[in-house]
Amino acid sequence: MTKKIAVLAGDGIGPEIVAEAIKVLSFVNTDMKLGLVFDNALIGGAAYDAFGTPLPQQTLNLCKHADAVLLGAVGGPKWEPLAHAVRPERGLLGIRSELGLFSNLRPAILYPQLVDASTLKPEVVSGLDLMIVRELTGGIYFGQPRGIRTLENGEKVGINTKIYSVSEIKRIAHSAFKIAQKRHKKLCSVDKANVLECTELWRQVVTEVGKEYPDVELSHMYVDNAAMQLVRAPKQFDVIVTTNMFGDILSDIAAMLTGSIGMLPSASLDANAKGMYEPIHGSAPDIAGKGIANPLATILSVAMMLRYTFNENVAAERIEQAVNAALDAKVRTADIFSEGMTKVSTSGMGDAVLNAL
Amino acid sequence: MTKKIAVLAGDGIGPEIVAEAIKVLSFVNTDMKLGLVFDNALIGGAAYDAFGTPLPQQTLNLCKHADAVLLGAVGGPKWEPLAHAVRPERGLLGIRSELGLFSNLRPAILYPQLVDASTLKPEVVSGLDLMIVRELTGGIYFGQPRGIRTLENGEKVGINTKIYSVSEIKRIAHSAFKIAQKRHKKLCSVDKANVLECTELWRQVVTEVGKEYPDVELSHMYVDNAAMQLVRAPKQFDVIVTTNMFGDILSDIAAMLTGSIGMLPSASLDANAKGMYEPIHGSAPDIAGKGIANPLATILSVAMMLRYTFNENVAAERIEQAVNAALDAKVRTADIFSEGMTKVSTSGMGDAVLNAL
Ligand SMILES: CC(C)[C@H](C(=O)O)[C@@H](O)C(=O)O
Ligand SMILES: CC(C)[C@H](C(=O)O)[C@@H](O)C(=O)O
Repeated sequence: MTKKIAVLAGDGIGPEIVAEAIKVLSFVNTDMKLGLVFDNALIGGAAYDAFGTPLPQQTLNLCKHADAVLLGAVGGPKWEPLAHAVRPERGLLGIRSELGLFSNLRPAILYPQLVDASTLKPEVVSGLDLMIVRELTGGIYFGQPRGIRTLENGEKVGINTKIYSVSEIKRIAHSAFKIAQKRHKKLCSVDKANVLECTELWRQVVTEVGKEYPDVELSHMYVDNAAMQLVRAPKQFDVIVTTNMFGDILSDIAAMLTGSIGMLPSASLDANAKGMYEPIHGSAPDIAGKGIANPLATILSVAMMLRYTFNENVAAERIEQAVNAALDAKVRTADIFSEGMTKVSTSGMGDAVLNAL
Repeated sequence: MTKKIAVLAGDGIGPEIVAEAIKVLSFVNTDMKLGLVFDNALIGGAAYDAFGTPLPQQTLNLCKHADAVLLGAVGGPKWEPLAHAVRPERGLLGIRSELGLFSNLRPAILYPQLVDASTLKPEVVSGLDLMIVRELTGGIYFGQPRGIRTLENGEKVGINTKIYSVSEIKRIAHSAFKIAQKRHKKLCSVDKANVLECTELWRQVVTEVGKEYPDVELSHMYVDNAAMQLVRAPKQFDVIVTTNMFGDILSDIAAMLTGSIGMLPSASLDANAKGMYEPIHGSAPDIAGKGIANPLATILSVAMMLRYTFNENVAAERIEQAVNAALDAKVRTADIFSEGMTKVSTSGMGDAVLNAL
């Protein structure tokens, strides 16, 4: 049986990094007879330019019928003047929502070869390996009412609604507890329960779900403290579970701890582990087209795809080991470059991984 | 004319750190004939325990008739089981709102003596001096509707509303631009305009207000990126202006960059620079009563009070220089202790500052 992958390169550096990931994945596919087939479609600004919408129906259909989606990145200054409803970001948010990809896994692993690239002191970050589980289809990203409107008193206001239902919180909590069970059995739930009732409910429900996982040590932290603790002592964390908005912020902090946001993959899963895989970094319009972007986050994202959607653990590890080998061979893209290393281009890094396979 | 200061020590380490700040301020008051008079009142958990409310009317009245408020900290696990409406935090939020303290200034300065206490590499943080201007009386902290309720379909949900009006954004933007003018003339406005319409309006209004300050270089950043940039290269920032919720998170990150959240003061101002002054750290229930908390954030908060509310710049600088001198004398509370230093208690640190005055 063939396994279908929808490939959405998107905007900015998206096409460059996706090309390298496909190069690596295609090799493994052929070599290990995985039976993967690829189909491309437009999303984001590229889709808007072609069809006037960031998420064309044919793209959505392709994703719905695929087993997994590989996404590059969306957005850029070119499309910032557009109305919200047709911005590139809406394409990404639309897929997340339409495919029900509520569980977003963002591992932050510091490769020992890159300890120097972190702005944090080596003793604070070396050995770092944490996982952020971000709720991805609810919260303030999707809550209604939303918009900019003029009130009866004539005041113009901007409104968004942060809303979580018990069932939404339950399912992400279960995801997170299950992941914690497979790791070091520590889960920290991050909220702002002292101020926001929405996250007070979050805390209650996570606590309740926790009773079904007595082997996992559950703790709770306010988001401001969690952000601070990530900088102060990140190794205290094993798995973090949090809301859509807080997860957006915390995962970027965690990413930076590992030296470069260019290294970090992500998986966004539905209830059946059907998923979308993408680097956690954005479209980086400032370096787009220059061939200097780091493709490793995207390459590691296809490894996550093999593991989570296709249960191809051997193939996944093979790619991860090849990334490790490339780093051992001292090749570095600009974002992770340091003295004594060999600076390579986007495709140079892809080749280094390919050679190590 | 006497100048009235309402002193609200609050919970946890609040009374311990406030005592040291008052010790320092009283000395300067007498020595420089500043004419300050002090009045104490209860807030937070302490007020709840005594009166069943975290913000008793007499406390609010005292604050309303005072020229400035000095606050320690509120909250602790003891009061976490309480209903939201009577939690200690509501006392703090109530004062902010009732006094119209919309502009919260949170400087993050790394003292050269404490470079080693930061978890970031010295070259990344040394010389750090940035100011976060956080909107403090609006946004999701105060938006309606809010609460936990059961929908018609039987689903229980938690709801909060993020809402900003044009006038709320305008006034905080003006505050921030004015502060930037007195500093290095760079203002970075942080939002999530690519996803939240509320902050799309924020960006529009800040941009509009910016036209009145052509000497200030305005930039915009998404909150996830800003959190990351604070860890990657914090010295790129001069002044940051942002919403209540984002400011809560970003200021804790900025605080941590300086080595200890125990060092950082804050000012919360209304339109007439009447204000409340407090350390940005919390009530730290885990170390309350042990006499080991760092009082410097509170001592530096009274320096801010002298400067912003009373225009007593000489007195303010005198306190700041005494803090510097205490650090030069190598005395350190536990949170900023490192080898070769002398470990002192909370009151030991207060005394060291007093001696240096
Ligand atoms: C591009 C943007 C809509 C997106 C988000 O906020 O979720 C991005 O920051 C991310 O973290 O995937
Ligand atoms: C205690 C809490 C309500 C408060 C806030 O969230 O504003 C605190 O975290 C702060 O930053 O002053």
